[in-house]
Amino acid sequence: MGTEDKIVSWICRLTVITAFFLVGIVIGWFVRTTHVNHGQTSKSFLRDLLDEMQAENIKQHLRKFTRLPHLAGSQQNLILAEQIRDEWMKFGLDLVQLVPYDVLLSYPNKTNPNYISIVDHVGNEIFNTSLAEPVPEGYEHVKDIVPPYNAFSAKGQPEGDLVYVNYGRTEDFFKLDRDLGINCTGKIVIARYGKIFRGNKVKNAMLAGAKGIILYSDPKDYCAEGVEPYPKGWNLPGGGAQRGNVLNLNGAGDPLTPGYPAKEYTYRYPAEDGVGLPKIPVHPIGYHDAIQLLKNMGGPDPPDNWKGALNISYRIGPGFTAGIEQNKVRMNVHTNNQVTRIYNVIGWLRGAVEPDRYIILGGHRDAWVFGGIDPVSGAAVVHETVRAAGKLMSRGWRPRRTVIFASWDAEEFGLLGSTEWAEDNARILQERAVAYINADSAIEGMYTLRVDCTPSLHNIVYDITKKVTSPEVGEEKMSLYESWHKRDNWTEQNLPRISKLGSGSDFEAYFIRLGIASGRARYTKNSKTERYSSYPVYHSVYETYEIVERFYDPGFRRLEAVARVRGGLIFSLADSVILPLNCEEYASSLNRYANSIYQLAHKHPDAMKQYHMSFDSLFSAVGNFTDAARDIHQRLTHLDTSDALAVRMINDQLMYLERAFIDPLGLPGRPFYRHIIFAPSSHNKYAGESFPGIYDALFDIENAAEPHKSWEEVKRQISIAAFTVNAAAVTLMPVI
Amino acid sequence: MGTEDKIVSWICRLTVITAFFLVGIVIGWFVRTTHVNHGQTSKSFLRDLLDEMQAENIKQHLRKFTRLPHLAGSQQNLILAEQIRDEWMKFGLDLVQLVPYDVLLSYPNKTNPNYISIVDHVGNEIFNTSLAEPVPEGYEHVKDIVPPYNAFSAKGQPEGDLVYVNYGRTEDFFKLDRDLGINCTGKIVIARYGKIFRGNKVKNAMLAGAKGIILYSDPKDYCAEGVEPYPKGWNLPGGGAQRGNVLNLNGAGDPLTPGYPAKEYTYRYPAEDGVGLPKIPVHPIGYHDAIQLLKNMGGPDPPDNWKGALNISYRIGPGFTAGIEQNKVRMNVHTNNQVTRIYNVIGWLRGAVEPDRYIILGGHRDAWVFGGIDPVSGAAVVHETVRAAGKLMSRGWRPRRTVIFASWDAEEFGLLGSTEWAEDNARILQERAVAYINADSAIEGMYTLRVDCTPSLHNIVYDITKKVTSPEVGEEKMSLYESWHKRDNWTEQNLPRISKLGSGSDFEAYFIRLGIASGRARYTKNSKTERYSSYPVYHSVYETYEIVERFYDPGFRRLEAVARVRGGLIFSLADSVILPLNCEEYASSLNRYANSIYQLAHKHPDAMKQYHMSFDSLFSAVGNFTDAARDIHQRLTHLDTSDALAVRMINDQLMYLERAFIDPLGLPGRPFYRHIIFAPSSHNKYAGESFPGIYDALFDIENAAEPHKSWEEVKRQISIAAFTVNAAAVTLMPVI
Repeated sequence: MGTEDKIVSWICRLTVITAFFLVGIVIGWFVRTTHVNHGQTSKSFLRDLLDEMQAENIKQHLRKFTRLPHLAGSQQNLILAEQIRDEWMKFGLDLVQLVPYDVLLSYPNKTNPNYISIVDHVGNEIFNTSLAEPVPEGYEHVKDIVPPYNAFSAKGQPEGDLVYVNYGRTEDFFKLDRDLGINCTGKIVIARYGKIFRGNKVKNAMLAGAKGIILYSDPKDYCAEGVEPYPKGWNLPGGGAQRGNVLNLNGAGDPLTPGYPAKEYTYRYPAEDGVGLPKIPVHPIGYHDAIQLLKNMGGPDPPDNWKGALNISYRIGPGFTAGIEQNKVRMNVHTNNQVTRIYNVIGWLRGAVEPDRYIILGGHRDAWVFGGIDPVSGAAVVHETVRAAGKLMSRGWRPRRTVIFASWDAEEFGLLGSTEWAEDNARILQERAVAYINADSAIEGMYTLRVDCTPSLHNIVYDITKKVTSPEVGEEKMSLYESWHKRDNWTEQNLPRISKLGSGSDFEAYFIRLGIASGRARYTKNSKTERYSSYPVYHSVYETYEIVERFYDPGFRRLEAVARVRGGLIFSLADSVILPLNCEEYASSLNRYANSIYQLAHKHPDAMKQYHMSFDSLFSAVGNFTDAARDIHQRLTHLDTSDALAVRMINDQLMYLERAFIDPLGLPGRPFYRHIIFAPSSHNKYAGESFPGIYDALFDIENAAEPHKSWEEVKRQISIAAFTVNAAAVTLMPVI
Repeated sequence: MGTEDKIVSWICRLTVITAFFLVGIVIGWFVRTTHVNHGQTSKSFLRDLLDEMQAENIKQHLRKFTRLPHLAGSQQNLILAEQIRDEWMKFGLDLVQLVPYDVLLSYPNKTNPNYISIVDHVGNEIFNTSLAEPVPEGYEHVKDIVPPYNAFSAKGQPEGDLVYVNYGRTEDFFKLDRDLGINCTGKIVIARYGKIFRGNKVKNAMLAGAKGIILYSDPKDYCAEGVEPYPKGWNLPGGGAQRGNVLNLNGAGDPLTPGYPAKEYTYRYPAEDGVGLPKIPVHPIGYHDAIQLLKNMGGPDPPDNWKGALNISYRIGPGFTAGIEQNKVRMNVHTNNQVTRIYNVIGWLRGAVEPDRYIILGGHRDAWVFGGIDPVSGAAVVHETVRAAGKLMSRGWRPRRTVIFASWDAEEFGLLGSTEWAEDNARILQERAVAYINADSAIEGMYTLRVDCTPSLHNIVYDITKKVTSPEVGEEKMSLYESWHKRDNWTEQNLPRISKLGSGSDFEAYFIRLGIASGRARYTKNSKTERYSSYPVYHSVYETYEIVERFYDPGFRRLEAVARVRGGLIFSLADSVILPLNCEEYASSLNRYANSIYQLAHKHPDAMKQYHMSFDSLFSAVGNFTDAARDIHQRLTHLDTSDALAVRMINDQLMYLERAFIDPLGLPGRPFYRHIIFAPSSHNKYAGESFPGIYDALFDIENAAEPHKSWEEVKRQISIAAFTVNAAAVTLMPVI
């Protein structure tokens, strides 16, 4: 070869060597990348997961878990826990534990039943309410059906005149006291179920001085029009009654161990110091019995909107029970509180990249009786999610972050299982938990989706529902999102409606106490046309498998859709490289809430002037938050997602945003409600209130005994809210 | 070429190409590694940093910052803040801010001075205490020297008999009440300074019903033997007196905005609801004046150990002030509380790898007068640390994590600047802060090092002191560690002594409220032979530059050594790949504390039996913690430190360990003291108490009015401690 040739040859060789060398560098780079495992969002896996969840499986799970009653603390509920543990292990979770706590529960006395009597002037019981609900066909031989009762009622046999207090809401007692001049002190009151959490009714009755309270289900609130009572339809029969606890825990969990998990060694307060236990007897009855108590009462006519659907001439009382002046009402309540062992089932699916980041899917397992809707429609969905996730894992997939599945116990007794576990694990949860998705009843109606969640989850909820098909007949080509949007448009946003979280289910401790981004989704009724409370057979013996299978969801397509929404949320949160939490949505929600509380205060323009009230600090804070939210999402668009630490750092900022709204000092008088933006309403645990500290300070302020002090408290609460929103904004800013 | 040759040639070429290819892969791998930047511990940089800090510079900083008085809230202290800000920027920090708060301060009335009188039977003031300290030479023309006073004293002119209460400790008042039968109700009491925080003396006096309290410095407590008063020596002259606040804040920060930063918009409680403000007048005097009040008092002889070194015949009182029966004592206190703007200086040095992890070096700037020792000996050290860090940065170095430098304001008024900033930044600190090192006075004696810190920092403290030379003459070849070990051996460990953190300086909010690993280091006296309290001229006008330069540290080698310890700790924490926090040391400390509190309870063997007391749960928890601590350090030995996420995850566990000891519910009656393992003693803010909840429940339990209730509270506190230690153990375990 000539010199030139040699040179050319060497150049060629060098080029080849250099090329290989460079390719090597690139490979090295990416092998390294793979090693760090940035876990790109597994869109195909999400699709596979959604498709893996199937109506027929959910149906089978529901059938299996509703054969026998499984009340919290019962042997049957432990057996069910063990069964779920074993199946979750088989499905492929990495670790499944039964986690016990010893909490205060409450059961009727088996030998001394609870009932209400009408007694005549010589003390004879001339009418007694029924001791149990007629058992539905097919369940006649089932043992251990607990009769209707209100858990944690005080014991006692108070006797006296009866006063009808409508729904027993704060405004109902105001009406009685301020407009109707009726004093409830020393009386037995009767309230219809509905509108608000029953514990609030009991608290209001105690504050009004009542010595007992009877709760009944009025057909106006528990029967849909044109629907037959169960088993012909899904309405509540006249002999049915709603069970339910009547605690005012305000998030404390087990009444005897507030703030700490109810372990064997945990100190327990004496029963008389227990948190939230009512001091008066409470008992629930159905409408057949209620008629007997309410007919031909004395006292004035009630306002029209107080009248139920019972076929009686309504009067408020007191006295004249069943039309006879000397008749009194006697309550006979012998319910016992007792410390009882409960069991959560906790399943772990280890994350591949960030095992120390937790996404939680939790729902309760305990039921008042069979739990056909509450909770097993939800528990069946969790079960199917675990099964589907296991299936994907068997194909080699793992999500980026850890997923925790929980089957809570004793939710019906005050969210006890979930709250004790939150207390037990508060340290690791506050450092590591990304989000909590609740899985109570998956269905309460047949119309459309209902979602309550923290604002930062709105976008991912919409995204997931676009990936799910509508379960409605005739909408096979429509997404769940489209169907939902069509059926429940949130007009001001032109989006499907999403509401604030209230309470009354197991997300409470996670969201309101610990500040973990939370949400819930279920299928619901048409809130515009269906005016009954909850669903008619709620907490009755008629909540069976059959009511779901025959009426609520014959094809199990609605439950399947809910499963896909819940499961889709969990695995998007677990697997996205960048957490799908939207701070700008939080900003716009804060802006709405600030305007709304400002409007509320401005219903008192004179006082606002007199006491130099200003919301400027709050609006300024919301402005700062809005800027910080916009800015972090802009930074996200430039993020090098191959830089593992950069991703981790900004995800930490997103994750800890919800935590920033937690004030360790809690809300006034409610130390376990610590979220400054959201809390259950002080007047209805079920409802969510925004800026609850300010709201409560403003409540009924026109009747304040010391207006100056009351308005000072409003100022203090505005200051706390403004500081909290500002502090949250700072968490979103660049870390230096 | 033959075929064989060709094959050989090709094999050669392939080998070369493959080799280059592999080298490329390796390079790619490591370039990637560099990109993620694991920031190996910069041992050489640490050495450079320690060497960069120099005695002569510290001397100059001290000189510069002690020329004029710089009381919190004064113009001079703002000027100093601006000067520090400007110099820190020049030194090279990334960001330096003045951060203002508007807090409640307290100043004497300039036109109506405070003093104490002896008044005769017709009300004439026959003796008045001096209005000011004699000003030291060279400072005669200095304006704005605040006279001795007790900040936040109530105003008033109470008059009455005087009772001598020794140090005013809990046990002193017990002695008066239980053994000596002397009732302080309606009396003015006089206590000597020393042994405990003065605020506790005032609280005890209020509880005893006193209507005023005089605090004086006894030579027994404020003069070293064989030492001349300043300026000839470093003892307190007879005309000198100790200033100081007399709050009982229990960690609340600004008394009017407990729990929230004192910003412009923050709600302020009315003055009468301020936290920790004494309700009685308090005034400090020197021993020349004290003699006049105490000589020839009435009442019984005090116990021998109550007698000070004053040349008087001691009696306890009441009455007979200065030997005349009808003489009374009158206090004249006109001090005003007023909301005043203060300024922290906050400097940021951005971390190269994990900017969202913060290490804080903070100390106060405000002084009662010149602050020669307190705080400027500390502030000069911080200044030198910033200078040295800047120097290294100019050579291209940056630590792995972010370092925050703080010059706090209004420490002397209740740790206000540091607490308000902690409240303001609680969210980001609890997510991101790794450690807090305090930098108050760097010297209080001339003997050896004194370190108080959280157990997890013990090892790194020992490591750093081994890298620093002893500052003592004749010990040039000895490390600080060796010198310290020789001078203050912690016998049971055969290590230099390290103590628990108490309070009384700015680490309080960071450690006790937020649960950030904290420590402090300073040069101290020989605690075995030098029995005086603090240092003699503490909080007097005699704390000048000259007292340090002439007596405490003529070569500034001791301050240099302290600078190197503090700076070395900060930069080791900021720069080590694995955080140098030792969980096993925490375990062994917990074990010691559990044994110690168990022993304390067992001083009541009968009650322990009667009330079925058990510490089993606590010991079991300490066992769990010990196992978890051993296990995490074993996992650390196998850690792939090139895996950025693995390092981050285990560092998070180490960082959050201290946080795990925080109980959001706080200690009983002390909501801002939330650390379950450590709190300032309820009887002396300066001292640290371990398992403070149990300790306080046991305190004086033999005299409890309702023993059953008191022992129940002990049980409750044991249960809380056991749960907290267990929960902390869980944070160290594998994350799933």
